[in-house]
Amino acid sequence: MTEHRSATPDIGTTDVARADVATADQPTADEVRLARAYLLGVAEPPAPALHAFVAEHGPVVAAERVHRGQVPDGVARETQARRLVERSADDLRRAAESGHRLVIPEDDEWPAWPLLSLQIATGRGVRDVAAPVALWVRGSARLDQVVDGAVAIVGARAASEYGEHTAAELAYGLVQDGAAVFSGAAYGIDGAAHRGALAAGGPTVAVLGCGLEVGYPAGHVGLVNRIAEQGAVISEYPPTTPPARHRFLVRNRLLAALTAGTVVVEAGRRSGARNTAATAGALGKVVMAVPGPVGSATSVGCHELIRDAHATLVSSVDEVLDTVGSLGGAARTESAPRPRRPTDDLGPEALRVHEAVDERTGTAAERIAEASGVPLPRVRALLPELELSGLVERCDTGWRRSRATSR
Amino acid sequence: MTEHRSATPDIGTTDVARADVATADQPTADEVRLARAYLLGVAEPPAPALHAFVAEHGPVVAAERVHRGQVPDGVARETQARRLVERSADDLRRAAESGHRLVIPEDDEWPAWPLLSLQIATGRGVRDVAAPVALWVRGSARLDQVVDGAVAIVGARAASEYGEHTAAELAYGLVQDGAAVFSGAAYGIDGAAHRGALAAGGPTVAVLGCGLEVGYPAGHVGLVNRIAEQGAVISEYPPTTPPARHRFLVRNRLLAALTAGTVVVEAGRRSGARNTAATAGALGKVVMAVPGPVGSATSVGCHELIRDAHATLVSSVDEVLDTVGSLGGAARTESAPRPRRPTDDLGPEALRVHEAVDERTGTAAERIAEASGVPLPRVRALLPELELSGLVERCDTGWRRSRATSR
Repeated sequence: MTEHRSATPDIGTTDVARADVATADQPTADEVRLARAYLLGVAEPPAPALHAFVAEHGPVVAAERVHRGQVPDGVARETQARRLVERSADDLRRAAESGHRLVIPEDDEWPAWPLLSLQIATGRGVRDVAAPVALWVRGSARLDQVVDGAVAIVGARAASEYGEHTAAELAYGLVQDGAAVFSGAAYGIDGAAHRGALAAGGPTVAVLGCGLEVGYPAGHVGLVNRIAEQGAVISEYPPTTPPARHRFLVRNRLLAALTAGTVVVEAGRRSGARNTAATAGALGKVVMAVPGPVGSATSVGCHELIRDAHATLVSSVDEVLDTVGSLGGAARTESAPRPRRPTDDLGPEALRVHEAVDERTGTAAERIAEASGVPLPRVRALLPELELSGLVERCDTGWRRSRATSR
Repeated sequence: MTEHRSATPDIGTTDVARADVATADQPTADEVRLARAYLLGVAEPPAPALHAFVAEHGPVVAAERVHRGQVPDGVARETQARRLVERSADDLRRAAESGHRLVIPEDDEWPAWPLLSLQIATGRGVRDVAAPVALWVRGSARLDQVVDGAVAIVGARAASEYGEHTAAELAYGLVQDGAAVFSGAAYGIDGAAHRGALAAGGPTVAVLGCGLEVGYPAGHVGLVNRIAEQGAVISEYPPTTPPARHRFLVRNRLLAALTAGTVVVEAGRRSGARNTAATAGALGKVVMAVPGPVGSATSVGCHELIRDAHATLVSSVDEVLDTVGSLGGAARTESAPRPRRPTDDLGPEALRVHEAVDERTGTAAERIAEASGVPLPRVRALLPELELSGLVERCDTGWRRSRATSR
């Protein structure tokens, strides 16, 4: 399941070395893109030292120095195992043929604003959340646009029917309300979320833990194709990078960063979705979880998130939108009114008087006062008010409840 | 459905008036009990002015003055409709015949400590939570003992099978752990909670919104009999007081006050259980709610409590005990460990190296370094460590995963 390219010891003629020549003037856009493709592959993300090095020197100079091994120790540790692996020009060429693209911070499309959360968290000392130096993208959606108000829906691969149904319903509703749904293209909750979003006409975005060309998981190749048609598929890994467990965890920081909030629909006691949730929390994003039956093993992780990690319980699209602060969300919740009872507007004394009026037999005001504990003069004042409200009626033997309000 | 006794205009020979004679000396225990039985019936609870009046003057003098109508305006408003209704001696006589008792603050059995929460809340300005002046009790359990660590389990009458099952399971487990289960003897969740507690051998306590002799709800007469046998049935209403909606709400403050915390198992958007929860919160008690499927109308109220009112989500007996702070609760939760993986103790680099080792084909250390992005010298150091942990093994062509740890 792993895949390797040969190291090229002689680097005199590589693209990266050529890119270096151009640093005398301003590097061209192609040179910058090539340098970032190289930098994306040369270190296993997240690579905080390399990211800082690129920020300091610019991608072209940084790439050249990494390639030559002339870098500080931290950068060397992150890059030495692959610095002579030269595949970035190939990757870019094949991507162009497939209609894929490398989106870089120098592009208008770069989702700079949401990714800023990664830099801020890194600056605050959160580990393993360095920003990516570029992103491989397949699909029609523009990244800077699709992230606006986007919500991540994640969860267990071994999901229940309840979980998949809920994920699909939430995704469908969110897309209908104009929010893109991000997920990880995995089996279970991820797939259900993507499908629900596609059913609503998209957009939906898959962020992968492997390269765009890998076709993982095998059963979701068709789904990923449809995601690319109606949204985008994103990876920070070179196109042929195989999946690995740590890559899913590293990928999770992008799901968290690129969205306004993360909804965990189902999660076992041990689930990658909880990692995404924890990362979202560390990034200052909204963490939400869907409850489920208490006996269900696939809801244990969600319940723990709500109980112990103070994730917000969400049970509907409106609640998700409210929680991530979407416009109009508050109004939506208020539009689901509590059921009303005809006695809702009565004060406490009037309620007690109403309760003391028999449903069938007429009751004298004196008896009503005694039964309700409300003073007789108040009872005499309240009964006509209750009659006007249609709650009680006079009869030969006193007062009785109107038929409509009897229990 | 209402029940009345005739007012007695001539009070010269009533028990209360006789009790008054004794105030020259110290009133006898019987006089105090009779006075409190009268005070319990003379005002519709909660009766804050009467409660304060009794606290100021003592029950015997207070009863005499109420009876004569020589009271401040606030007390008069609460008592004038019933002050001449004389049934307390009768009630006490019939109670003694039935084996019921009136427990009063002067008794050792009085649950003074939990009821203090009502006085404190009243003092803080919380409305409608005045403490009762006495409690009618049927059953073998001593009130001061059974309240120790008790938990209220409440919920919708129109409960689902899931809700009733969950209520019964929680009650069963709580009783097995030594906690008494309090509830309201209603259909649905209340009944399931009592039954679960009875199945575990009790104790369970029902707090009624009507008198002990009323037999409401009709379908639970047998259940209430069993509750009395294995615990207690409590009411602050004179024995023949009919049920009324406001009485259930008023009763809820006793459920909340007498227990360490309240668990709402199922509740619709509008449910009396939410009133109990709100009261419990106002009394500084722990409020808990059980989640359920998001599509279920009977879980909507629970989800709202968790989401909007910050009730603690509970999904097991251990979580309930943890939340109410029972001894040993923390240890219990820790005894439910997360499932372990053999790679759990590996550092991040070792994890990446392990992932890069192929499951079947041997891989050279150089390829592992490239695939994992971990520097080759570290890879060469880590592989023998992984071998010692039984995670990888050497073969002719390099290293491969040990069979036991392959995915």
